[in-house]
Amino acid sequence: MERFIWSDLDAAAKLAAIARPTGISDASIIEAVTSIMAAVKMRGDEAVQDYTARFDGVTLTDTRVPDTDLKAAWDALDKNDKAALETAKANITAFHAAQMPDTIRVETQPGVMCRREPRAIEVAGLYVPGGTAPLVSTTLMLALPAKVAGVTRRVMVSPPGKDGKINTAVLAAAYLCDVTDVFMVGGAQAVAAMAYGTETIPKCDKIFGPGNAYVAAAKSLAAQEPGGPAIDLPAGPSEAMVLADKDANPAFVASDLLSQAEHDTLAQVVCVCTDTETADAIEVEVLRQLATLPRREIAEAALKLARMIVTDTREATLDVVNAYAPEHLIIQMDDPDAMTPNIRHAGSIFLGPWTPESVGDYASGTNHTLPTYGAARAYSGVTLDSFIKYISVQELTQQGLQNLGPAVERLASLEGLDAHRLAVSLRLKAMTS
Amino acid sequence: MERFIWSDLDAAAKLAAIARPTGISDASIIEAVTSIMAAVKMRGDEAVQDYTARFDGVTLTDTRVPDTDLKAAWDALDKNDKAALETAKANITAFHAAQMPDTIRVETQPGVMCRREPRAIEVAGLYVPGGTAPLVSTTLMLALPAKVAGVTRRVMVSPPGKDGKINTAVLAAAYLCDVTDVFMVGGAQAVAAMAYGTETIPKCDKIFGPGNAYVAAAKSLAAQEPGGPAIDLPAGPSEAMVLADKDANPAFVASDLLSQAEHDTLAQVVCVCTDTETADAIEVEVLRQLATLPRREIAEAALKLARMIVTDTREATLDVVNAYAPEHLIIQMDDPDAMTPNIRHAGSIFLGPWTPESVGDYASGTNHTLPTYGAARAYSGVTLDSFIKYISVQELTQQGLQNLGPAVERLASLEGLDAHRLAVSLRLKAMTS
Repeated sequence: MERFIWSDLDAAAKLAAIARPTGISDASIIEAVTSIMAAVKMRGDEAVQDYTARFDGVTLTDTRVPDTDLKAAWDALDKNDKAALETAKANITAFHAAQMPDTIRVETQPGVMCRREPRAIEVAGLYVPGGTAPLVSTTLMLALPAKVAGVTRRVMVSPPGKDGKINTAVLAAAYLCDVTDVFMVGGAQAVAAMAYGTETIPKCDKIFGPGNAYVAAAKSLAAQEPGGPAIDLPAGPSEAMVLADKDANPAFVASDLLSQAEHDTLAQVVCVCTDTETADAIEVEVLRQLATLPRREIAEAALKLARMIVTDTREATLDVVNAYAPEHLIIQMDDPDAMTPNIRHAGSIFLGPWTPESVGDYASGTNHTLPTYGAARAYSGVTLDSFIKYISVQELTQQGLQNLGPAVERLASLEGLDAHRLAVSLRLKAMTS
Repeated sequence: MERFIWSDLDAAAKLAAIARPTGISDASIIEAVTSIMAAVKMRGDEAVQDYTARFDGVTLTDTRVPDTDLKAAWDALDKNDKAALETAKANITAFHAAQMPDTIRVETQPGVMCRREPRAIEVAGLYVPGGTAPLVSTTLMLALPAKVAGVTRRVMVSPPGKDGKINTAVLAAAYLCDVTDVFMVGGAQAVAAMAYGTETIPKCDKIFGPGNAYVAAAKSLAAQEPGGPAIDLPAGPSEAMVLADKDANPAFVASDLLSQAEHDTLAQVVCVCTDTETADAIEVEVLRQLATLPRREIAEAALKLARMIVTDTREATLDVVNAYAPEHLIIQMDDPDAMTPNIRHAGSIFLGPWTPESVGDYASGTNHTLPTYGAARAYSGVTLDSFIKYISVQELTQQGLQNLGPAVERLASLEGLDAHRLAVSLRLKAMTS
């Protein structure tokens, strides 16, 4: 891991030490995705099938997975896997259900009643990647909050493997989470299908989920179109920052750094440590644990970009955190929760020695869909709110309009919008005639 | 107004009757904006000054408006205008303050503590358009929620007029709302300056506010960049849908339709009426009130696109509303609030005869920054939440990890992520050694 002594760095060197990789968006990807999306918009299912044949190497005449297949996948699952999924489901459901918003009502002045009412999104599109690891956890993290929020139609798409099927564990998770529609389609063509709708895949109001650069580009392009779907979050490589002091257990810290590193060769791994000897011990542990990992090659590639930042104080450590705005922040320091109030930007925080990042990835109850690449400065991860929107409502009594009307007339005049003023004036006049 | 009899229409004709205008995005605009943004990214203030000279026709060496100018603008304001702004401020503040979220805490299973903590965005960029009407109300609707949420730096930009100044009423509103930084810059160059930061204009975490097609394109392009700012809402022409039945006052309905029509030649104006005679009377009133409006030409152009949809029943009326997902929905029907629970998609609802749209535009307390072009299907308007993001936090006790750990190990194995499993296993082992 490249080591930086924070107090030795000037402002520019500090920025460089926590810089993210550049070049993560690519014009050739945008071009390819634009053409895929145009084809799906124009030719619907037929285009989806063509791209599935080309990119996934399978010919499917029907992309819908029958409900009976979902149930069969669940039934076939090992009972310990079932129990683990049920534990995760219970915790994720409990944490997101506690986020259900109430209607807020305020009488802002006598006779002027205002409210904010929540409404669930109607059709949510949930993208579950295929690839090297079957992402059962992504299925849970998207489908369960959608159901808790009251989303009517919870549409999941995931690319078929070479056998023309979605991974069985992912289908079992979809069954457990009561997904309403599952389609075997992945990549930009899946996002396009959810954005525009096809003969079989419903048009979705909002599209959620991680994916490769093509999926990310398709989501971003879809969201920009007039009348296009909303999306959950901008995409970027996954990241973890671990904070450690002299009391941290180097093996625990190393295991969290490696959990991040094994995700992806582009995964960002940063350790901030207030003690040089502990930093040394952590690096030794990283190498020791790395040696036997099945995904060692991926982790090794990610570790080439990894950084160890040595700080003097807790305050300096907080400066690093807030400047970086990490997706995952694991705090293995004395009195870790004393840091929390001063952390302004992070996706999810993991406190103390017994809270590895992997508990949040799977089953503590928090959502693992989190802002990357510094987006934690302005974005939340997926929460129940991601599946809800608000309608404001106002109702004035006659007295309320008498109270408020003169101010509205004045402001409309100030803006030179006479019809706005008139809408109040003729009502006030009608009251007295 | 073009009239449609809803029950006579087949599905395709219904969609056509509520279709929005196409062609609102334009490749030539994207191209121009891309080049402006690249120049501001590269050359900072110098580029901003060049574009201000070119587009606004004024040469400014310093774009910052001194605090003393803000105070002077407020002091110079007519006392009735001050009182109207103060009324609006009090109501908007009260409604948004009631939306302040608390930390949510759930012990999802014994020893597994999860929380969701709100944090204000740090630097918000607020775009206040110039143009034909000085948008004092936009200043209030953006700056007040930002302050209530606890946003540290509330940066407002607005284009200078030919006199090299921002409209005095807008500056007075900025003073009243305690905006921390005001800059005289508009258009795509203002958005670029907030997205990248310049020598004088701070880089903003999120950019808010309406604007012309160039401003909208710049916001959208900025939000797509890796590490780019978040934005509030996608932009589209403003819209109002008014629902009326036989008891509606045709003059009131007409005044709300005209409030919308006077905004912009592209403004969308739709009336849904359950009674043909009332529909006729509304159209007569529209023409009568139109005759004396100062902004008649704009309103007339917008009315060319206006639609009158005649329905048979309240249920059919609800179908039209939910299919259209209007930005503003004004309900002048018997027992209007009985409709609300069945309205799934709308930006803001105005109930009954004494609640013209203009009260919400200015001063009832609700926010006037609302989703257009059907975006109400997936987006909220600006609420306090627009200035807040959430951090999830979890802390497991030793017992908590003993309870939850086995499920996490199992799920990590199911996904083939061995380092994720190991992060739990070595901790469980450490407990017993």
